[in-house]
Amino acid sequence: MDIIRQRIQDFFSTPPEGQKVEVLGWVRSVRESKQVAFLHLSDGSTTAPLQVVVDKTREELASCLETLRTGASVRVVGTLRPSPGTKQPVEIHAEALTVLGPAPEDYPLQKKRHSFEFLREIAHLRPRTNTIGAVMRVRNTLAWEIHRFFQERGFLYVHTPIITTGDAEGAGALFRVTTLPPDAPYDPTEDFFGAPAFLTVSGQLEAEAYALAFVNVYTFGPTFRAENSHTPRHLAEFWMVEPEMAFCDLEGDMHLAEEFITHLLEAVLERHPEEMAFFEQWIAPGLTDQLEAVVNTPFTHMTYTEVIEHLKKAPASFTFPPEWGMDLQTEHERYLTEELVKGPVIVTDYPKEIKAFYMKQNPDGRTVRAMDVLVPRLGEIIGGSQREDDYERLLARMQELGMRIEAYQWYLDLRRYGGAPHAGFGLGFDRLVQYVTGMQNIRDVIPFPRTPGNAAF
Amino acid sequence: MDIIRQRIQDFFSTPPEGQKVEVLGWVRSVRESKQVAFLHLSDGSTTAPLQVVVDKTREELASCLETLRTGASVRVVGTLRPSPGTKQPVEIHAEALTVLGPAPEDYPLQKKRHSFEFLREIAHLRPRTNTIGAVMRVRNTLAWEIHRFFQERGFLYVHTPIITTGDAEGAGALFRVTTLPPDAPYDPTEDFFGAPAFLTVSGQLEAEAYALAFVNVYTFGPTFRAENSHTPRHLAEFWMVEPEMAFCDLEGDMHLAEEFITHLLEAVLERHPEEMAFFEQWIAPGLTDQLEAVVNTPFTHMTYTEVIEHLKKAPASFTFPPEWGMDLQTEHERYLTEELVKGPVIVTDYPKEIKAFYMKQNPDGRTVRAMDVLVPRLGEIIGGSQREDDYERLLARMQELGMRIEAYQWYLDLRRYGGAPHAGFGLGFDRLVQYVTGMQNIRDVIPFPRTPGNAAF
Repeated sequence: MDIIRQRIQDFFSTPPEGQKVEVLGWVRSVRESKQVAFLHLSDGSTTAPLQVVVDKTREELASCLETLRTGASVRVVGTLRPSPGTKQPVEIHAEALTVLGPAPEDYPLQKKRHSFEFLREIAHLRPRTNTIGAVMRVRNTLAWEIHRFFQERGFLYVHTPIITTGDAEGAGALFRVTTLPPDAPYDPTEDFFGAPAFLTVSGQLEAEAYALAFVNVYTFGPTFRAENSHTPRHLAEFWMVEPEMAFCDLEGDMHLAEEFITHLLEAVLERHPEEMAFFEQWIAPGLTDQLEAVVNTPFTHMTYTEVIEHLKKAPASFTFPPEWGMDLQTEHERYLTEELVKGPVIVTDYPKEIKAFYMKQNPDGRTVRAMDVLVPRLGEIIGGSQREDDYERLLARMQELGMRIEAYQWYLDLRRYGGAPHAGFGLGFDRLVQYVTGMQNIRDVIPFPRTPGNAAF
Repeated sequence: MDIIRQRIQDFFSTPPEGQKVEVLGWVRSVRESKQVAFLHLSDGSTTAPLQVVVDKTREELASCLETLRTGASVRVVGTLRPSPGTKQPVEIHAEALTVLGPAPEDYPLQKKRHSFEFLREIAHLRPRTNTIGAVMRVRNTLAWEIHRFFQERGFLYVHTPIITTGDAEGAGALFRVTTLPPDAPYDPTEDFFGAPAFLTVSGQLEAEAYALAFVNVYTFGPTFRAENSHTPRHLAEFWMVEPEMAFCDLEGDMHLAEEFITHLLEAVLERHPEEMAFFEQWIAPGLTDQLEAVVNTPFTHMTYTEVIEHLKKAPASFTFPPEWGMDLQTEHERYLTEELVKGPVIVTDYPKEIKAFYMKQNPDGRTVRAMDVLVPRLGEIIGGSQREDDYERLLARMQELGMRIEAYQWYLDLRRYGGAPHAGFGLGFDRLVQYVTGMQNIRDVIPFPRTPGNAAF
């Protein structure tokens, strides 16, 4: 008879009947009585552990228990039996037990709740905890579903560059990349790329070049901000998703954004009921209802100008009094999505002064074809726009802003050589994971967070 | 009657019958006779263009032709008809024609062959060419199939960090990342991360931490080498795939690697017959047969020691005479795969001195549980190993090599806290794309290549 080796999740969902099984994993806890020991085993595939029942009267099993502590990795061979005593459908009755890697008594992850601050210090071990385990499974699903969403719609995945000598779009402080010795006088012509080089803040401009060849493309890669932000919402290194579509206007862009968000939330709710129940219980009560509400509510559309009018009439008192021309603050976004509309809102046509140079100018001369998708609790989850496809208007705006035109001539050329209406948006992937899992701090949704003062591991 | 808007590829594969259709794309060429004009239209979805037949006797169409040149973006509405004259099943007879974005006479991509060197200078426009278009479609398929391969096998996708202050494994020269002003005296404690920070050369060590929590994981992200290499095989910034499996030895590792390569080649051969025919004709004659041979030939296994014996007996004369202890050179790898075995070879158990510190030491004290997958024409396509899971042996090896132990204490700890046999491998994604497409220069298989002296766009 063959021994069936499966992941714990598969034993729970489709337990093989009447066969010997093999499980490999890490011991979460050991509970002993005189005759029997109960081990809780995890292999990272589920939130719930598998219970292993060990008959202590069998000497070869009992002797193995002596070196077996929380954190050890083990191999168990045995038979699956229905498990009426636990929440899980089956447990395993051990016939053979091997400790593959023991854990000493100072193993940092004992069976108790640890603070997330403490867990960040042991970022190499924290994926073995219930919370980080559940977060990373949801993160994986979101990444996979992003690819699936775009691939099934014929979008081409583009690896836009990480290091660039082109001027960045001014979206924030930059990390400089160099191979010159730290204390040598700085001569960029002597540096690796022959010019000052930086880590990218966005792949959008390069994605535009590819959209104007393949029509529909997307990026999914790391981006960087060297801002000295110590908030629970900011990382110096984070992953971003940026679709870009040719022959597409703001309407098409908003349509895709709504479909995209809805698809991703649905996928997580469907594939991760256990993880969602866990977050609901321990992290963010009400989370599932909130996500389901977003899935089931058509997104409301509103211009920025309408938003300001609503805010001025609002019964709420804001720290930042609403005034046309200002950037919307979190308090405004929350009022809008949580009080006024009670659902997701897409705000369009922002003042050009608070938006990026590449956004398509409206005929009014004051606003641009921008759109931000706001959701309750989080605020902005997506920012996008139709791009300026008129060469002269784009050039004039760049000159107005004092940008270095030579560095962007290739970008301007996309408007001179077979240009087309095009649009796109950006979604901060880690912030999406944070939103979906309800985690308080973004440092706990990425494996090894990079923040001011910390790039360890 | 609705107008059907589709990508050109879909019109070729499943042409809708008796309906008006709409196509959006870029003009590749214009050929005119007295009565009729023929446009070749591309939208990046196929290698072959769609032929548009324009009746010049219709004035509204003829007037449109006046501003229409190679490179312009257009919208065509018309009817699909069988196209006996071309290789494609259908052509479109225009009823309406709109130039969305004209192209001036200096449009750099006229209908002729351009050198790849020239195309690199217009990296923002080159995706509109046949060759780069075909390469990028294959690149997209390979990226997608990599995710699909691992996701379907329950592997967790892990975003390992790009910036790191930990010592790198010594795999090559590093890019330093800083926010300090270039000419200030260098004080790392004043820098953004409070310590010298670098761009990663590999996500493997961090992936190991995650494999020891989730069993099977993989990375797929950018990695960096600051080497001053001006070869057609080297990039300063490239994408790497690194699976890592707990409870897995070298046998399991090799098994996965073979399955992986076979899956990827099969997927491209199946999904891209047109692109492969194009590469076959213009880039690398014999390419399809070569890839099919790899798919159909079981990989031969051989130890490094056996390889050296074979090389010593070889009738060939090598520039580097084979000697136990040396690294295998391209000439050796080619002899092995192209002459001796005539197929893919997995070489195992290399001398520890030429391999990385983390590889599992064999009992012989001289070799490690490494494996390289070699394929004809390319040489090494995958490098992997079982990892040293014995704390003391790993520590001793690191000390022997003079490594800074404090920086790696977390990595060592993975052997102290529930360690397990584990293994993995790395595949250079861009080199895979180069291999599959037959392209001579790796700079032509990544959208915006970064090499010494160049990080433009």
